[in-house]
Amino acid sequence: MSQARFDVVGIGNAIVDVLSQAQPDFLTRHKLAPGSMTLIDNAQADALYSQMGPGMEMSGGSAANTMAGIASLGGRGAYIGKVKNDELGKVFRHDLTAAGVAFDTTALADGPSTARCLIFVTPDAQRTMTTYLGACVELGPGDIDAKVVADSKVTYLEGYLWDPPQAKEAFRKAIKIAHDAKRKVALSLSDAFCVGRYRAEFLDLLNGGVDILFANETEIMSLFEVDDFDAAVPLIRHRCEVAVLTRSAKGAMVVAGDKTHMVNAAPLGKVVDTTGAGDLYAAGFLFGYTQGYDHATSGRIGSIAAGEVISHFGARPETALAELIKRHL
Amino acid sequence: MSQARFDVVGIGNAIVDVLSQAQPDFLTRHKLAPGSMTLIDNAQADALYSQMGPGMEMSGGSAANTMAGIASLGGRGAYIGKVKNDELGKVFRHDLTAAGVAFDTTALADGPSTARCLIFVTPDAQRTMTTYLGACVELGPGDIDAKVVADSKVTYLEGYLWDPPQAKEAFRKAIKIAHDAKRKVALSLSDAFCVGRYRAEFLDLLNGGVDILFANETEIMSLFEVDDFDAAVPLIRHRCEVAVLTRSAKGAMVVAGDKTHMVNAAPLGKVVDTTGAGDLYAAGFLFGYTQGYDHATSGRIGSIAAGEVISHFGARPETALAELIKRHL
Repeated sequence: MSQARFDVVGIGNAIVDVLSQAQPDFLTRHKLAPGSMTLIDNAQADALYSQMGPGMEMSGGSAANTMAGIASLGGRGAYIGKVKNDELGKVFRHDLTAAGVAFDTTALADGPSTARCLIFVTPDAQRTMTTYLGACVELGPGDIDAKVVADSKVTYLEGYLWDPPQAKEAFRKAIKIAHDAKRKVALSLSDAFCVGRYRAEFLDLLNGGVDILFANETEIMSLFEVDDFDAAVPLIRHRCEVAVLTRSAKGAMVVAGDKTHMVNAAPLGKVVDTTGAGDLYAAGFLFGYTQGYDHATSGRIGSIAAGEVISHFGARPETALAELIKRHL
Repeated sequence: MSQARFDVVGIGNAIVDVLSQAQPDFLTRHKLAPGSMTLIDNAQADALYSQMGPGMEMSGGSAANTMAGIASLGGRGAYIGKVKNDELGKVFRHDLTAAGVAFDTTALADGPSTARCLIFVTPDAQRTMTTYLGACVELGPGDIDAKVVADSKVTYLEGYLWDPPQAKEAFRKAIKIAHDAKRKVALSLSDAFCVGRYRAEFLDLLNGGVDILFANETEIMSLFEVDDFDAAVPLIRHRCEVAVLTRSAKGAMVVAGDKTHMVNAAPLGKVVDTTGAGDLYAAGFLFGYTQGYDHATSGRIGSIAAGEVISHFGARPETALAELIKRHL
């Protein structure tokens, strides 16, 4: 892979997470599907927050979590996403730059506040998310820094970006810049419901737009509208350079050309909160990929990074992943 | 103890904590004494934050943590403290009320922002704190709700309240109201450096102002300017109804009249972050005290509550303490 200033640039919704423990009946009462991500407006967010237990605030956002993971692994990362210049926006910027990720997207001075994701963690360690997109809806093509994208080995896009209205234009612009510069484009399908909303467009992206696809079992089954994981695998094969299919405790399957690599999960102690598992798996895989490791090794790095993040509350690593890889790879 | 609407009302600095992991050389470089609390101004807070690693935001404040503990134990608590009506102020109010604590102090509309405490947790699980008091400096006698204080079995005051200029008047007003209503007053010495700043005034409070004193080893030694814990014990005996002296892993000593009770520490797994240990010890003891338990049992409840809070990041319980007490007492 040719030299570049950054290994990966992530583009996504810039969100501060508010995490709280909740009982399953809370989800039932508020009609939230366990494990899902639901979009809510500001008034709904206020109403739900008032019902929520005591929380902790931590920077989140799917692609931003992935970038924090890349940096923790020792990779060089950049991020493009929209916050407002408010208290939570400053927290988001601080946390990402303190993690070592370049983040220069201009903050909104006026308009909607920095996005919040209210996350309910149930005793089974599953997380259920409700997102107020706030300032994220203002992300547009003008925010795509062409120099950064052209100078990154991989441009990583989260499927959630399809939700805010202008972001998909930004998304397509980034793909064109990356491919014109002979770089790779990676996409995470983000969430089965998100796939349901944008299935046709995501399938269209697999016609040359995306080189590396990340999806979990329910997402890849939703994409191809099949109810069996094994039926989805042949449908994704040869649709992109590599498809990384994560399967929670069952590990992951890496599908590349005619080859299939099985990767074991790497739990590090008790599973406390699965928030960020997919994001960190992507971080590990992309770190390996951009360092020139083979797919099986890259998958193993993904498992270790995901194993760390599910061992504690929050969606970003608490331990230097570079050290963890040295010990466990 | 006569009936009351609340078991305990806590009065303190209303603070949102920003926790981050740090290496010991960070403390050296910034001239921060390990384990201490240093007051900083807004500019210093901004400068230090820019050097700090990625953080997580959680409501804190010594007495507020204690009140969250009281509520988690099943006690009835209220809180008096000053936030601004900004994003972090709303987070603070949400977290405390969601924990089940009555909190009706009017928020500042203008002026300094809600207080922040930058907390550096080193690999030895020790926490070192730097506090920007912000809105807390506006807490004054007018904020003391006489009805709440008169209707609480115990009024609990943190020594840190001596730092903001008007709060000590609020402090003295609360003591008078509580004692006029034949209620008890408890004081935490908060921090050895805080004792250094206000030693004479704290000693004066022991002339009838305070019924229950909480202090750790360094605080009680600082109060009496002795360099041996055993020398401090006879000096505090008979100066108040009960003195609760916490000694980290060595447990606690409860000194009441001629009696002395030794209480073991109750670690629950690995010690991750000692933030809130003293606050939760006080919560456990005051819960037992207001429920009519003897001093030894109250001390044991304190040990269990402190044991829970040091087993994870953050200064408030993550587990329902009432359940923990049922299992471990």
